[in-house]
Amino acid sequence: MLNRVIETILEHRSIRRYEDRQLSDQQIRIIIQAAQAASTSSNIQAYSIIGVKDHTRKKKLAELAGNQPYVEKNGHLLIFCADLYRHQQIGKQKAIDISTSLESTEKFMVALIDASIAAQNAAIAAESMGLGICYIGGLRNQLKEVTEILQTPDYVIPLFGMTLGYPLHQSSQKPRLPIEHIYHEEVYQLDQKIFQEKMQEYDQIIQDYYRKRTNGKRMDTWTAQIANMLAHPKRLFMNEFVRKLGFNRK
Amino acid sequence: MLNRVIETILEHRSIRRYEDRQLSDQQIRIIIQAAQAASTSSNIQAYSIIGVKDHTRKKKLAELAGNQPYVEKNGHLLIFCADLYRHQQIGKQKAIDISTSLESTEKFMVALIDASIAAQNAAIAAESMGLGICYIGGLRNQLKEVTEILQTPDYVIPLFGMTLGYPLHQSSQKPRLPIEHIYHEEVYQLDQKIFQEKMQEYDQIIQDYYRKRTNGKRMDTWTAQIANMLAHPKRLFMNEFVRKLGFNRK
Repeated sequence: MLNRVIETILEHRSIRRYEDRQLSDQQIRIIIQAAQAASTSSNIQAYSIIGVKDHTRKKKLAELAGNQPYVEKNGHLLIFCADLYRHQQIGKQKAIDISTSLESTEKFMVALIDASIAAQNAAIAAESMGLGICYIGGLRNQLKEVTEILQTPDYVIPLFGMTLGYPLHQSSQKPRLPIEHIYHEEVYQLDQKIFQEKMQEYDQIIQDYYRKRTNGKRMDTWTAQIANMLAHPKRLFMNEFVRKLGFNRK
Repeated sequence: MLNRVIETILEHRSIRRYEDRQLSDQQIRIIIQAAQAASTSSNIQAYSIIGVKDHTRKKKLAELAGNQPYVEKNGHLLIFCADLYRHQQIGKQKAIDISTSLESTEKFMVALIDASIAAQNAAIAAESMGLGICYIGGLRNQLKEVTEILQTPDYVIPLFGMTLGYPLHQSSQKPRLPIEHIYHEEVYQLDQKIFQEKMQEYDQIIQDYYRKRTNGKRMDTWTAQIANMLAHPKRLFMNEFVRKLGFNRK
């Protein structure tokens, strides 16, 4: 039942070091076409993709994204944006009031979902060509500055970046939550005993993973990582910021 | 440069009529594994997938999703959920206050992005097996009732469904926006003249598409469809609803 497509999907790992070799325009075009082939809610197509080649611009974005060198050094950099700008312009030109839709949390969600499933198509297409990719959530660290560099208008939110390129390394795959923990049959599984068992099981898996990779120096559990990460809230400007851009207001 | 993976992606079309033939457990397992192989923000894994086989439950969900018969009649039904419930439970058990993170718009976005890119992996994996799929945004029509049927707790939002199955038809592909309209080089393209040209170009493409399919009976443009759709706001309960579940509050 496994085939070349599923193998490509299961082989995914984030790649953070790339050859100094740019993607061709033809490669980029196919990757964008793949993104556009994804489903979109009622054909709303509420996203845009910005491709950055310019080295100075990449460098600035890398700094804003937390100084990750691979945001600067890669074969290409894509920025996926939630985008209701086109729609807002259409409403204006036809003099039809669509502001309630544009400002609704529902359409904010639609734009995020549209952009994300398009992005994953791009990722799989790129990986099938032998390229590596890495999602760059750090792009949201200083989002106002990012919108200035990319000159995005209101009704457009740069959501995340994606670096692409020819891999210089083969990274390992971090084990995911046991499938039974992500996948629920018929109804959501709320049994506390099962939940505890699964958490312990996964903590053990993650501990073993780190232990092997670091010769016993690192032994984090997933639950400790999650608790620690979430104890330090990030990007709390986001609520106000997306509302200023016109999203998620009502 | 085209390969089997990219062909699968480019061949996508929503399938809305399926053979009366259920997916095997092995097929479902591979599809969920494919979903799990997608990137996830800092390994947060902020999503869950509920698989529904029970016919009565499918029927109820189909009614809630706007009486789409294919939500009831398919080879399998998956519901993709934004999920911070595990994380909330971890915080509680470790007695660490993570409420600000959980309630942040940032983590609401992370959960939506995580769930969506996982979903698209599932879609591509299924299509590579010769199955058809359809995203079901209509699942959000009456979301409170959906959470009751699926017994999802706070910190879990059912985002959309995905029907899967053996296709009974080959639907056509609706042409997307011209690639230059979705894809911006270096910075967001704001030139009004180019924007107008692209809109007219796409309106013409969509008109031609409908004209051919309906022998001239239907001649909608995209801009008219968008204006009409957005003039009628949908699911305005969403803002309050997701906040009640613990998301998107600050």
